[in-house]
Parts: sequence; C-alpha cells; structure tokens
Amino acid sequence: MKATVPAARGYALGMTKGDRLRITNTTGTQVLDTWAFATDGQDDLLSMEHCREVLQKITFDTGDILVTNLYRPILEILDDTSGGGHDTLIAACSAAMYARSGAGNDHPNCAANLATALAGEGRSCAVTPAPWNLFMLAPVRDGRTIDYIRPTCPPGGYVEVKAMMDCLMVFSACPDDVYPTNGGDGSPCDVHLEHISA
Amino acid sequence: MKATVPAARGYALGMTKGDRLRITNTTGTQVLDTWAFATDGQDDLLSMEHCREVLQKITFDTGDILVTNLYRPILEILDDTSGGGHDTLIAACSAAMYARSGAGNDHPNCAANLATALAGEGRSCAVTPAPWNLFMLAPVRDGRTIDYIRPTCPPGGYVEVKAMMDCLMVFSACPDDVYPTNGGDGSPCDVHLEHISA
Repeated sequence: MKATVPAARGYALGMTKGDRLRITNTTGTQVLDTWAFATDGQDDLLSMEHCREVLQKITFDTGDILVTNLYRPILEILDDTSGGGHDTLIAACSAAMYARSGAGNDHPNCAANLATALAGEGRSCAVTPAPWNLFMLAPVRDGRTIDYIRPTCPPGGYVEVKAMMDCLMVFSACPDDVYPTNGGDGSPCDVHLEHISA
Repeated sequence: MKATVPAARGYALGMTKGDRLRITNTTGTQVLDTWAFATDGQDDLLSMEHCREVLQKITFDTGDILVTNLYRPILEILDDTSGGGHDTLIAACSAAMYARSGAGNDHPNCAANLATALAGEGRSCAVTPAPWNLFMLAPVRDGRTIDYIRPTCPPGGYVEVKAMMDCLMVFSACPDDVYPTNGGDGSPCDVHLEHISA
C-alpha cells in the first residue's frame, strides 16, 4: 500500500508485527518527525532516551533495533539510503516554538499534527513525546554543541523499517520554515510511504 | 531550609519563583535524577529536548536558563562546582531497566521514585519525562557514541539553581548499581539540599 504524508501535515499508519515500511524522502529536502505507539495491549511508545541508552549512540543505523520506554523492541531499521544521522535530540516543533520565533500563533506544527493524527485514532498523549526526526541533521560538534544543517539526503533516499510489534506509527512532514531544518527553499514537501504487510 | 534526598529514594520540593537551591553531592559519587514541573497554573515541565534545542548543546552550564516544553524559563543555573557535563540523553532507570539487566523485578528505581514523590503531591505523569541527570556523565565520543563513566564530581561539589517560576522539583538519588553511573563502590548515597527562599 502506497501513501503520502502531505507537506506540513500528519499521517497515522497502523503496523502489524512483521510489516515493513519504506519511507521515501522524494525531494531529499524534507524532515519527517516520527513516532510509534504500541498497539498490542500495552501502552509503551518509541522512546529516544531509551534507544540512546541501549544503543549507546545519539543516532541510529541499519540493523539497529529501536525500543520503547519499556525496552520492548518496536522497530528495526532494515535499510537506510539517506546518509543517516537522523536527529534524536530536538523537540518536535510546536505552536509555542513558532510563537517564540515570531512566526505567529497559528503556524502548522508537528506537535499539533501528532495530536490530530492520534485523535483520529481515538488516542491522545498529555506531553508530546520526543520524536525520531527522520532526515533531520543536528550534529554534535566537539562532544557537546548542536549544529543545525539542512538535510543532505539524496532525492529518493529512504529509510526502511520493520515493525517488531503491532504499533501505530505517526508521521509529520515538518512544517518548519524558521530553523534550517528542511532543505531546498525551506518549503515543506510531501513524503512518500510504501507499506508492505507481513 | 536543609533537606536530604535519601540514598536510592526520591524527594519533592516546592519552589517559589526566585528561590535558590543548592544541590550538594556530598560524596561526589552520586547521580541525582532531577525533574521540575510548573505549579503556576500551567502544566508544562522541564524538557531536555527543548533545552537542547534552545541552548544548542547537549549539556548545560552556569548561566544557562532551562526551559519547559512551552519554552518558558523554569530554572537558571547559578553556579556549578561539580565539573559539569550533567547528562541529558539517558532515560531514568526503571523497573523495566533492572528487569532487563537481570537485577530482578523489584529493584528501587528513579522512575518509581518520581511516581511516588508526585503521588505525595497529588500529581502523576503517564510517561516518565526524560530527567536532567545531575552529576551523571555520559559523554558523546566522535560526535555520536555514548560512553558511561563514573561521576568525577569532587566531594561536596554542588549545583545551584534559581527557580524562574513557581515549580515542583523532584529528585531521585539514583539507585543504579548496574551501569557505572554512580561512583565509588556503586552504592547509592544521600544528596543534600539547601533551599533559600526568595
């Protein structure tokens, strides 16, 4: 099944254990905030701080198994032709972020896209979880300073993941036009998904 | 007012805007998981991923102003004689972490200490927020690999913070004896607080 995460919007996708998903950065310029929530009867979720702890690194690679806040495997990274380095350190953009940046109080944002996508599935979360920021580069220099640079993913670069449990994945094609997060002219673009059932 | 965070236990402390708090690592060996929750009518909380974004670094220093997930200033770091480098990357230890490590299902843990301390204040949180791990060192090597080393804080080293808003601070003197998180012989120790009202 093919699907599109529309530019600056969110998208929810139910995954069954064993399903594979190819996430293609068609333009190569677009950051995709990504979350995953268990749907197998427990309510844990993909957790950046637990993945960093277990994998002992701040960015993740092909072959890595990402875990929830209960350390349960939720996603395996099967392939990555993007160049990697997907950020795990930075918060999802939010209404508060754009207001603080002088971009007004009604700017589209990833936190709201997550909330809307979850509401469509009858779910919610009190605090926006730290996202897995696919295609976003926020390299750490000198062991501690964070830099923001535009994505270096080639057009058509992709990440492929496998669901290690039944889960709900939520994506937001980041609407950021304040930080140098999205590449090209900074305009949000569509991201394309290919969902292959187990 | 002087107080103690007992070894392997949690402690909650209400702070009024302008209050100062000196957090002393009496032995120099003890990690202190630290959280702060707004109590001024909003329900935002100290957020590592928002602080990293705004401060553009993965560890924080004297003079830095830490923010909530609404980017509101909540704590200012007034002084730090510990040597700094307090971890922001790693999850609080939890029942799941100790079970995974083979340390049993009833090991004291920071996540439970937070929950207990919050319950004592009539509060709760659905997901354990990523803590500010005072005195914990998890340096990033080569831009991405996380190392775990024992604290290098001198005995009596301290961090002093000022509340930038009314907030509830919660501390857990980390019970970790699995990772090389706590120093010395790995035994949890008391941490001492000195609260100076505005």
